[in-house]
Amino acid sequence: MNESDETMPSTPVYDTLTRTFDRLHRLFHLKEIACWDQATMMPPGGNEARAGALAELGGLIHAMMTDAEFGRRLSAAEDEDLDDMARANLREMRREWERTNLLPADLVKAQTLARARCEHAWRSQRPANDWPGLRENLREVVRLAREEGRRLAEGRGIAPYQALMDKFEPGMTTERLETLFSDIKTWLPGLIAAVRDKQAGETWLKPAGPFPVEAQRALCREAMALLGFDFSAGRLDVSEHPFCGGVPEDVRITTRYREDDFVQSLMGIIHETGHARYEQRLPRGWLGQPVGRARSMGIHESQSLAFEMQLARHPAFVGLLAPLARRHLGERPELSGEQLAALLTRVEPGFIRVDADELCYPAHVILRFEIESALIDGAIEVDDIPALWDDKMAAYLGLDTRGNHADGCMQDIHWPSGDFGYFPSYTLGAMYAAQFFAAMRREHPDLDRRIADGDLSVVFDWLDKAVWSQGCRWTTDELVRRATGGSLDPTHFRTHLEARYLGG
Amino acid sequence: MNESDETMPSTPVYDTLTRTFDRLHRLFHLKEIACWDQATMMPPGGNEARAGALAELGGLIHAMMTDAEFGRRLSAAEDEDLDDMARANLREMRREWERTNLLPADLVKAQTLARARCEHAWRSQRPANDWPGLRENLREVVRLAREEGRRLAEGRGIAPYQALMDKFEPGMTTERLETLFSDIKTWLPGLIAAVRDKQAGETWLKPAGPFPVEAQRALCREAMALLGFDFSAGRLDVSEHPFCGGVPEDVRITTRYREDDFVQSLMGIIHETGHARYEQRLPRGWLGQPVGRARSMGIHESQSLAFEMQLARHPAFVGLLAPLARRHLGERPELSGEQLAALLTRVEPGFIRVDADELCYPAHVILRFEIESALIDGAIEVDDIPALWDDKMAAYLGLDTRGNHADGCMQDIHWPSGDFGYFPSYTLGAMYAAQFFAAMRREHPDLDRRIADGDLSVVFDWLDKAVWSQGCRWTTDELVRRATGGSLDPTHFRTHLEARYLGG
Repeated sequence: MNESDETMPSTPVYDTLTRTFDRLHRLFHLKEIACWDQATMMPPGGNEARAGALAELGGLIHAMMTDAEFGRRLSAAEDEDLDDMARANLREMRREWERTNLLPADLVKAQTLARARCEHAWRSQRPANDWPGLRENLREVVRLAREEGRRLAEGRGIAPYQALMDKFEPGMTTERLETLFSDIKTWLPGLIAAVRDKQAGETWLKPAGPFPVEAQRALCREAMALLGFDFSAGRLDVSEHPFCGGVPEDVRITTRYREDDFVQSLMGIIHETGHARYEQRLPRGWLGQPVGRARSMGIHESQSLAFEMQLARHPAFVGLLAPLARRHLGERPELSGEQLAALLTRVEPGFIRVDADELCYPAHVILRFEIESALIDGAIEVDDIPALWDDKMAAYLGLDTRGNHADGCMQDIHWPSGDFGYFPSYTLGAMYAAQFFAAMRREHPDLDRRIADGDLSVVFDWLDKAVWSQGCRWTTDELVRRATGGSLDPTHFRTHLEARYLGG
Repeated sequence: MNESDETMPSTPVYDTLTRTFDRLHRLFHLKEIACWDQATMMPPGGNEARAGALAELGGLIHAMMTDAEFGRRLSAAEDEDLDDMARANLREMRREWERTNLLPADLVKAQTLARARCEHAWRSQRPANDWPGLRENLREVVRLAREEGRRLAEGRGIAPYQALMDKFEPGMTTERLETLFSDIKTWLPGLIAAVRDKQAGETWLKPAGPFPVEAQRALCREAMALLGFDFSAGRLDVSEHPFCGGVPEDVRITTRYREDDFVQSLMGIIHETGHARYEQRLPRGWLGQPVGRARSMGIHESQSLAFEMQLARHPAFVGLLAPLARRHLGERPELSGEQLAALLTRVEPGFIRVDADELCYPAHVILRFEIESALIDGAIEVDDIPALWDDKMAAYLGLDTRGNHADGCMQDIHWPSGDFGYFPSYTLGAMYAAQFFAAMRREHPDLDRRIADGDLSVVFDWLDKAVWSQGCRWTTDELVRRATGGSLDPTHFRTHLEARYLGG
């Protein structure tokens, strides 16, 4: 405390902390833009220098977060007289500080190197179906992730995997996820089979390309505008792996275009626009502070899936989308509202998660959760992955993946890049999104008619009030209870899928 | 000194300094990429956050450069046993350290704010011809630049303007510049008049557009490839004001396209490619160290003008360029080698510096040098600028600019953004480039034939050996003497212009 503290009525220790986070926010800005550039713009020759620059910045940020004074200030601020929002901010500060300070710098550095090596090699190993090659690098990534999980879990009575998952979905437990996913597993295979039976009797027209990239881009931009993307504070670009990056003040989303398929880019863009609107509408007064960030990755995915699944595959919304598609891709019968809706709700198990339909997607996620949680907690080893993958793909989706590692356990970037604990976010997001739309429909019984009329403000306003504007003010569970009247309940997801796909 | 110093045979204090500069290089990387993004990609809504992020990074860099320990280490390292290159590196370190440490943080901050305000307002004031509006902001920018110059000049017995110029062209003095420019003023107006007389009798065909932007872009990329630009370590993009940015490992050049004129983008790109090759070929083993940087802005401009003026307007090179132009812009008589050469050497005084031909360009620069040096050294005030501008434009180029501030003293970004002392670099660059080509021609009497044959390696190899690979190893004067056998001599420039434009 310095002299001025005694005469000031405000809360100076807390204020010191917020200033540190304002500085961190400004440094994160540079990191995010440099990462976006790396994925979208950077020529290959710039890679080494970029990696060095990002590592330098990472070191500066880490040093700020592990400053001993910081921990003392956190404790001092907790005794100060703060309002609810400041207290929520302090809670999120402590969460971030603890995660950062539990990990020694040499572990972080070893992870950065091992992940970069593994991910880089994976980019050529995957097309070569080279599992033995990936396995070598992955063992080290897993060894270090277990060590990270062990350190984060220490003294909390939880397993390492849950400690890793906590970074993406704070408050979620492995047990709760097992319960949620076990429930899904009891009805999903039957539902997929029933829907495939029903759809087998339906005729549908597959739109045939080529669809010129420029036409697809124009269509995507119109879809983004329809969904309220603020182009004065964001961009659309191309990258090999679509993502939503940048900063809340300047959100950068990406896609990739295939001339033979416009659905991939269009649905991808609608997905990323859901992420983008969340970021663009985070509480402005709290930007830079932890409480001003998105709540969790599960909630983040709930916003992208609210757009991509709940909204974009809703027949009323498809009625808005079809004329745009015809304007850019040409008048053709496959792009009637009815045919487009059929195309977007076609169910067909396949090898690839990112290409999966709404119904098969959870099976992909559950499979990955079961393997990665067992892997991190030591029940299995890296060598066991392919056989487990084959068994589960056969059991959940009836597919034979034996020997096809490229389209099997090597398909995702998550494991090579060490992001264990992220996969559940996708299906948590789908469940949250279904619950949000169920609540929206209760509050607005005319919801479907308004969507059909093109009045999407009812959706945006609800999400803005319940989710976007709330940042990290509440825990995830509290956010969901305030928004929907109850904790996460997978019944809404099942009801939604049955209604949409069996028309019941 | 710590204990290990006594037992190590190496030069530990010097090594500490190089490590600091390696770190600074990595942080500059992020700054450069963020600035490039700001000019080429960033949506307007991202501006405030970007400015905050860059200011934060600037503060970190400034703190590293003003660390008291740093100054002590510089002095200690100067007593160590170092080779020539390390000693040159130390000389450049000290130069940068002294400049940074002579300026108090609050002056730097005040300048950042005043320049940002003035430049931002200038963007709309210029099209509105609003000199009184600009004048208000410019007074503060000038006041702070004088203060900066005064502090940098203190105890060195030089005027503030020279101290500012020293940042861009170390070693150059105001007196030497006045001598050089006085010489040019004795013959340039007469030469312009003689060339205009000669050209009045020549017929020439002005190529008529529209020239589609995509065709221009493809032509520009071919010209870049012809000039050896390494696309695996750089990019071409669009910005309102063309520039060469990025980092040596990833050079980003920009241009702007006008459908009615392909010359502007093509010559602009060739100019920036000259800058880019210098950056791409700086000594790799010294990247990150001050000695590994470009020598000065005059030398930098000499490389862009070696490409844009010496090479690209050389009839033999135009012979290579014309078929490329016809391939992308269509077969037409105006794009024959002869006609294109006539177009690129057409002399016609105009208001705008960046559109000026090779002959009129120095007049624009001399005018600005005379005004800005008088302004910084206190001989005139901001209010005196327009009248002086009008007088000098009438005297040097025979043009009446009265009342037309937008195309007069408001046309350049340099003054609103506080870059006093930069303008001379352009004409110094033109003089250096002429001297380099004269030396090249002495060493390679077959130079012109080899260019005509498309064998440009003779040019690149010479520039690489004499300039690019040398970084900051020598002072500017020493670099020029080693490359050409003598100090800067404006005779080469005059001889070149007379030979090219009067065919003598």
